[in-house]
Amino acid sequence: ASIEEGETVTLTKFTVFSDSIRCKDCLQGAMEEMEKALKLSLPVLYQYQKEYLKEYWNHCFLEIEGDDDLTAAVNYNMYQLIQSVGKDEYCNIAAKGLSGEGYEGHYFWDTEMYIQPFFNLTEPGITKNLISFRYRTLEKARENARILGHRKGALYPWRTIMGTECSGYYPSGSAGYHINGDIAYSVVAYYLSTKDIEFIVEKGAEILFETARLWMDVGNYYNGSFRINCVTGPDEYTCMVNNNYYTNVCAQFNLNWAVKFYRLLKEEKKLSPVAEKIHLTEEEIKEFDQAARNMYLPYDEKLKINPQDDSFLQKKVWDLEHTPKEKFPLLLHYHPLHLYRYQVCKQADTVLAHFIFEDAQSLETIRNSFDYYEKITTHDSSLSTCIFSIVASKLGRTEKAYEYFGDSAKLDLFNTHKNTKDGIHTANMGGNYMAIIYGFAGLRIKEDGLHFAPSIPKQWKEYRFKINYEDSQIFVEINSEESKFSLLKGSPKQVVIRGKRYELKDTLVV
Amino acid sequence: ASIEEGETVTLTKFTVFSDSIRCKDCLQGAMEEMEKALKLSLPVLYQYQKEYLKEYWNHCFLEIEGDDDLTAAVNYNMYQLIQSVGKDEYCNIAAKGLSGEGYEGHYFWDTEMYIQPFFNLTEPGITKNLISFRYRTLEKARENARILGHRKGALYPWRTIMGTECSGYYPSGSAGYHINGDIAYSVVAYYLSTKDIEFIVEKGAEILFETARLWMDVGNYYNGSFRINCVTGPDEYTCMVNNNYYTNVCAQFNLNWAVKFYRLLKEEKKLSPVAEKIHLTEEEIKEFDQAARNMYLPYDEKLKINPQDDSFLQKKVWDLEHTPKEKFPLLLHYHPLHLYRYQVCKQADTVLAHFIFEDAQSLETIRNSFDYYEKITTHDSSLSTCIFSIVASKLGRTEKAYEYFGDSAKLDLFNTHKNTKDGIHTANMGGNYMAIIYGFAGLRIKEDGLHFAPSIPKQWKEYRFKINYEDSQIFVEINSEESKFSLLKGSPKQVVIRGKRYELKDTLVV
Repeated sequence: ASIEEGETVTLTKFTVFSDSIRCKDCLQGAMEEMEKALKLSLPVLYQYQKEYLKEYWNHCFLEIEGDDDLTAAVNYNMYQLIQSVGKDEYCNIAAKGLSGEGYEGHYFWDTEMYIQPFFNLTEPGITKNLISFRYRTLEKARENARILGHRKGALYPWRTIMGTECSGYYPSGSAGYHINGDIAYSVVAYYLSTKDIEFIVEKGAEILFETARLWMDVGNYYNGSFRINCVTGPDEYTCMVNNNYYTNVCAQFNLNWAVKFYRLLKEEKKLSPVAEKIHLTEEEIKEFDQAARNMYLPYDEKLKINPQDDSFLQKKVWDLEHTPKEKFPLLLHYHPLHLYRYQVCKQADTVLAHFIFEDAQSLETIRNSFDYYEKITTHDSSLSTCIFSIVASKLGRTEKAYEYFGDSAKLDLFNTHKNTKDGIHTANMGGNYMAIIYGFAGLRIKEDGLHFAPSIPKQWKEYRFKINYEDSQIFVEINSEESKFSLLKGSPKQVVIRGKRYELKDTLVV
Repeated sequence: ASIEEGETVTLTKFTVFSDSIRCKDCLQGAMEEMEKALKLSLPVLYQYQKEYLKEYWNHCFLEIEGDDDLTAAVNYNMYQLIQSVGKDEYCNIAAKGLSGEGYEGHYFWDTEMYIQPFFNLTEPGITKNLISFRYRTLEKARENARILGHRKGALYPWRTIMGTECSGYYPSGSAGYHINGDIAYSVVAYYLSTKDIEFIVEKGAEILFETARLWMDVGNYYNGSFRINCVTGPDEYTCMVNNNYYTNVCAQFNLNWAVKFYRLLKEEKKLSPVAEKIHLTEEEIKEFDQAARNMYLPYDEKLKINPQDDSFLQKKVWDLEHTPKEKFPLLLHYHPLHLYRYQVCKQADTVLAHFIFEDAQSLETIRNSFDYYEKITTHDSSLSTCIFSIVASKLGRTEKAYEYFGDSAKLDLFNTHKNTKDGIHTANMGGNYMAIIYGFAGLRIKEDGLHFAPSIPKQWKEYRFKINYEDSQIFVEINSEESKFSLLKGSPKQVVIRGKRYELKDTLVV
């Protein structure tokens, strides 16, 4: 066609992305991708995107009546999460998503503990991808275990892109063995919310078995109990300790579920492929079970709390009250050796354990621990306040929970910390979602089903959200008067609300 | 003068050394040095050197009848030590002396624990220089303490040239706080063998006070006892532990002697200058005393040994028997995290404490500890076997002591490890001297005087050596029949031989 002077021409440029991980031949891969793209007109592509997001918004619906900014912020966060997260087994989700170079694009435990809990309830297919990424890199995790001196099992790297360890400072890098338990936990969490046994057969069980094996190699019996020495828990202000409570309870969970999956797969007659592949024996399963039963979980009789580790309570208490503001975050102003010598926490550690493994301790112990650690936690990590908020909710302290929740959901949309130019904070986005759903609404997915313990901050009139659970979609509306549960899709469900069991058929008001 | 063809001319080239630490103006310093040199003829310089060495050989006389190679080797070692050691307060002695670039010429605790014990007995003036080096860098040690977060006291760097910390890996670098106690110990050792109170007034006491202050800041009371958390002892295969026995007993000694020097200087009316300079109070001295009295020294009731640290015995025992030879030294083949998780020692740690602080424990405990640690020590450090040899001698196990002593004295003269091209091993040289004098001869210098506990390996006919002690020079001859002590110079001395006290006037045969 010829173009006359003065005519307007619109050029449409198609860009495709190709890489050598996904395609053997990058150019060929790019050409195929381009061919697909060229077959579609731009309006059709827009339409696809629209439909994709429409469905997404339906799955992750969340609004807070009484705080429009907050509703906008959490929706912005959910949009960023779906934009940032990997859509196949070749990638994961980076600390800054795709929006900044902070943390070098590495993947951390943030994925499993702060982001998957969101996708589990909204887009479990994404969780499946994220776990598939871990499965794809399981062989690298085995190699990593060998590097760290372990004769068996797999040890996931603390930070990674391709599956190899990328942390440069091992005391708060490779020593964070709880990453293994976190990944195991996320597999179980996915299973509990989807009952997708096929995925467990195909990938999940192997991850559980290999991570369980690692605990057997890293730990040892002493005075009849199973101990785990020289690891670093979530709190990076205390490194390379013995029997970090969080790590040990994580390992216990990991070992227990390796046993459960083993039995489940055996029952389903689907055990052989994985068991044969990794030469898993009944004897090992017995050892897992025994170690889990005898797992040493530090408990202090005097304070009636779980100490963060064996020697945590022997240490001096950091004087946070008299630490000048400009000295925070502490890690930028004090030598690690100095920090390690004090009772001071960068972030939720035992308190995190009290959220995700809440049934391991009595409510009284959890309350005591919360009160104890609250006084010595700096929240220098952005992974911390959301967890304190959730546990405060659990303890019925809604006001405190709201204080911890604060403006953190608005961090990136309103650029409250003036650092969004360096990239968004994906774990914070997931964490804030958790503080609402797992915190205020008190949602838990356990072996015995779906639990809620609804509460609402006095600043809100009502909040409403949708979640996926097994084959169902449930709509939840919570205000200070009542909580309403509606089954939008799927089969009736048992729901436990504040400890009382209900049948959810159509609508349930409590 | 004119030179005819065929005449021989000898050119003498004078080279002087100058540096900006010793001289403000390097060139001027060099010129002055050159002027001095030019005033002396070469034969006169040779004569000076000859006289210097003649006196040195007289002071450090040592010969072993029955092993001429060994006599040659120990004399070679003593020659290398005097050649390598700093002759003023501006330098010290490097791990490779001046003969190689290994360890980058840095100064370590080797100086205080492996080399000063030799010079103390032979050339105490050299010890004085070495301590003066530490005194000159005390201000840097104060700065280092601040960097490590301590509000008071001084922390000597793990490795240094100019007084600043030069270690790159802090878990087995800066975390080795025992360097403070080692330096304090060496000041006391110098004092006990010379009674040079003036030097204590001038330099020694200030070092003791400032290092003692650091222990008060690093440690804390817990359950009534004084604890020291998150430090690394001599054994670098177990890092950043709580209550390393060696470190705690070192700190106790340091604190005790700070108190003793305080009282001594007060009595002598020489306290004010140093006390005023560093604002030392009676209150602090009370605190030192209290901490020393309440120092926590780990003891295991079951094994009746001193555990290396609080959690050492909880760990798995490394299977040394089945570790292939090519896997040694372990640190080159295993990740530190892996090593730290096992009961395995690179070198004497608690056993070293049992040598230098032998009165802190019963002989039975020392024997049990020796037997326990012997099984799990790799001696991957060259600072280890000499200490095991000394403690074996102490336990009356002369044959074992000789096994540990082995050929190590011949390391450099006969190049037994084929690595002397990389430089000599100065600490090994000092260590071997110690294994003879402190080991076989059982020499100790304590507050109550000079001690001996002579023994002789069956491979030797007799060994003879001279030592300086206070104002005296003593000649010792030991064979399997008897030990002969001759006072060559100075006033009569009390000598304790195998626990029995004697008066040494001229000659004493036991």
